[in-house]
Amino acid sequence: MNNEKFETKISKHDENGEPIIRGYNLIELINKVNFTQSIFLTLKGELPSENEEKLLNAILVSSLDHGVEAPSTTIARLTASNGVSSSTAIAAGISSIGDAHGGAGEALAKLLQETPEKNASKIVVEFKEKKKRIPGFGHKIYEVDPRTQSLLKIAQDTGFYGKFVNLCLEIERELEKVSEKKLPLNIDGAIAALMSELGFDWRLGKSLFIISRVVGISAHVQEEQTTGKPVRRVSEKDVDYTGPTKRNL
Amino acid sequence: MNNEKFETKISKHDENGEPIIRGYNLIELINKVNFTQSIFLTLKGELPSENEEKLLNAILVSSLDHGVEAPSTTIARLTASNGVSSSTAIAAGISSIGDAHGGAGEALAKLLQETPEKNASKIVVEFKEKKKRIPGFGHKIYEVDPRTQSLLKIAQDTGFYGKFVNLCLEIERELEKVSEKKLPLNIDGAIAALMSELGFDWRLGKSLFIISRVVGISAHVQEEQTTGKPVRRVSEKDVDYTGPTKRNL
Amino acid sequence: MNNEKFETKISKHDENGEPIIRGYNLIELINKVNFTQSIFLTLKGELPSENEEKLLNAILVSSLDHGVEAPSTTIARLTASNGVSSSTAIAAGISSIGDAHGGAGEALAKLLQETPEKNASKIVVEFKEKKKRIPGFGHKIYEVDPRTQSLLKIAQDTGFYGKFVNLCLEIERELEKVSEKKLPLNIDGAIAALMSELGFDWRLGKSLFIISRVVGISAHVQEEQTTGKPVRRVSEKDVDYTGPTKRNL
Amino acid sequence: MNNEKFETKISKHDENGEPIIRGYNLIELINKVNFTQSIFLTLKGELPSENEEKLLNAILVSSLDHGVEAPSTTIARLTASNGVSSSTAIAAGISSIGDAHGGAGEALAKLLQETPEKNASKIVVEFKEKKKRIPGFGHKIYEVDPRTQSLLKIAQDTGFYGKFVNLCLEIERELEKVSEKKLPLNIDGAIAALMSELGFDWRLGKSLFIISRVVGISAHVQEEQTTGKPVRRVSEKDVDYTGPTKRNL
Repeated sequence: MNNEKFETKISKHDENGEPIIRGYNLIELINKVNFTQSIFLTLKGELPSENEEKLLNAILVSSLDHGVEAPSTTIARLTASNGVSSSTAIAAGISSIGDAHGGAGEALAKLLQETPEKNASKIVVEFKEKKKRIPGFGHKIYEVDPRTQSLLKIAQDTGFYGKFVNLCLEIERELEKVSEKKLPLNIDGAIAALMSELGFDWRLGKSLFIISRVVGISAHVQEEQTTGKPVRRVSEKDVDYTGPTKRNL
Repeated sequence: MNNEKFETKISKHDENGEPIIRGYNLIELINKVNFTQSIFLTLKGELPSENEEKLLNAILVSSLDHGVEAPSTTIARLTASNGVSSSTAIAAGISSIGDAHGGAGEALAKLLQETPEKNASKIVVEFKEKKKRIPGFGHKIYEVDPRTQSLLKIAQDTGFYGKFVNLCLEIERELEKVSEKKLPLNIDGAIAALMSELGFDWRLGKSLFIISRVVGISAHVQEEQTTGKPVRRVSEKDVDYTGPTKRNL
Repeated sequence: MNNEKFETKISKHDENGEPIIRGYNLIELINKVNFTQSIFLTLKGELPSENEEKLLNAILVSSLDHGVEAPSTTIARLTASNGVSSSTAIAAGISSIGDAHGGAGEALAKLLQETPEKNASKIVVEFKEKKKRIPGFGHKIYEVDPRTQSLLKIAQDTGFYGKFVNLCLEIERELEKVSEKKLPLNIDGAIAALMSELGFDWRLGKSLFIISRVVGISAHVQEEQTTGKPVRRVSEKDVDYTGPTKRNL
Repeated sequence: MNNEKFETKISKHDENGEPIIRGYNLIELINKVNFTQSIFLTLKGELPSENEEKLLNAILVSSLDHGVEAPSTTIARLTASNGVSSSTAIAAGISSIGDAHGGAGEALAKLLQETPEKNASKIVVEFKEKKKRIPGFGHKIYEVDPRTQSLLKIAQDTGFYGKFVNLCLEIERELEKVSEKKLPLNIDGAIAALMSELGFDWRLGKSLFIISRVVGISAHVQEEQTTGKPVRRVSEKDVDYTGPTKRNL
């Protein structure tokens, strides 16, 4: 590499070639910690307390899988049906996680962590003026999102019902005042609040979603490979052609 | 979609729009199982026993991170340095998991699960004749891989030291007979044996590696985004040009 | 980089920092050659003759775009609808080009270039015995593929109707003898024969398809970004759930 | 697909299953137009004039390849060295084209096309105040970029030296007034101006770069597959570990 070396605080190999993660020998980790603890350690640099582990566990389980219709899962299955390797299909699914699918949590976490004065009413007015929706609020079906309720209950039990959760609930109340319909804190919004309570950098918002959802995507890719027919195609009935009529050169 | 519907045994939404995974309501899972249990459930269809959970935990922790120099991690960091989103950088890293990096486990698991007559000496002879290396054996440094030792010890403790492990160890002994140097069962090979003991389809070999390694890749991408300089480049000193000398049209 | 330097015959920068491609200064190329000539030069190392240019042009135009329903184009549009950048959406589409979509040309080119004794009847028998289809033959609709006819006519006009084309047409005749239905040389097969006539390594088979199809994918991604609604989803009607019925933990 | 059909003006299949692009039968295109003409047609909807074709040709040739050290090319070669398919390696390279590599042209084209009042001095002041660099200006080595000079000369010859080019050159002059060092219109900037003169939507900025650069990336991936050693790795010497010292659980 050119001018700049990679600098890392995450991991290295020791003098025997053993992987060391955040200072701990990987072999000791294999024997003594569980996967959730090791995720917390790798991303944050220290092992979690029992309560931190409990809350991170709940966050990770909550995004596991949302059915074939979840856009990134659909894309991974379509890709797998073209006869590529599982890693390529999973990567296509993950690459499709963007601002409009799976990205709301990161966007709200950024807002929560970077807004200097945490004033709900000001935030709502600003978004209203820009005619934008606040990420992490609103749901197609629910007035109260049961997954949000579950996560907030666990936050309460573990002592992480703090300033970020409260700010989100104030935003929810302010939104109800200025909107005609209820825009509840949804699952993406709840995770944004809770990852902020746990001290995770907002830049890890999409990553936490990916670490969880890659499980569901993997299961669907393997199912597609073992039971699906090759090369799924959109039907012509799903396409409207509105271009120029036939013409000659 | 065209002719074929998607058919899935993994997940659906119930009449209230709630995600159901392998028959269980996601909200109940959030409250009652940990991440490792939910991974086992999503991939295999049933919750693990205590021993299955323990062994899967060890497998998942063992592939967490192998430093900046792990090729998929390097690629993810280089990609992130070009100013793309974290999901794009993580996807680039995952897409690079191929036959020669991260794929040995899947290849060996396929061999173990598909070879009808499990005869170590026959397997070794066949590979020898094709002048190919058996995937999952051999290591740059170790004669005995300490991570393999750890995983096999946990397999013994949990009752999963079965026919696949034994076949691998026989292959190791046969290899020693016919090769000059020791080719120990490495970490990829050990995981191939143990995922087979746990009853995971070999097609999930790369996926199990990805589910674990995506954690390390995520940590490295965030580190690159917060501390790295933009656009890392290979140095000209690392490139030898051996093409035609300068010429005119 | 580690042990090995990159070695390249393709390009370098000269002492003034000017890009040199296959020995020619890029600035001279900008002023004197067209895009097709420069593609031939970059991939093969020398500029094409007039006839080589004409045939490569026809090959490149023939794969330009096949509608929204082409699987890689569908995947790129779905990915774009999630709010990712155009480069990410285009990459997802390209990554989905696999053995079962867009890969037949490379597979047949490999067969043509690597089979030492070019005997059509032997090839057909071998595939028959393995119960495999020969890549590049057969079409949903056509008994005679009009695009194949066009390309072969141009091959005749330009002097590239040689041994690879003839072998393919022999295979077509042999297939008709042993199959019930006509399996005509399709567009993928024709391109495989013609790229072999032009002396392109079979490993460039998918690349030639990608260099052409990336144009159509780009147009569709921009159309999706400017006219599509966010987050396209598969309908629940397109999914059949066949997993376990609802159960409690 | 759900609620929304795909709507497209680009292409369809006619009643015989023939691909129709922008109203023209693909077979007629194969016989009558060259690749550059067909690219213009697919992206813009109409065939180019002779001058439009000439200018687009020059743009496409100018981004063909910039050596192994171009970050997206390096990433594609590293990915290929892991033993993945060429489409996966090419896709990884393309996905890495982001704001900081290959994205300056699109960013400047957006600025040029969306700024209502085209006032160079105002644009320069605004960027100065935000302490941001205007994309498309400045070069490591050159005070005058010879590739820019070439493209602008061709623009003059073809009648496309219009308002977007002039605005860019005014910005260049304004930048020289307020900066200590000369920040010349670079190749990305020149392409942004010229694609705007040709009437291409700024959203096609990265795509035009990708359509050209995918050629170089393809050549490098094939070279890596045929001559490179498996699994290139960053050297440990290129990594500085600054994390916690060894510790026990």
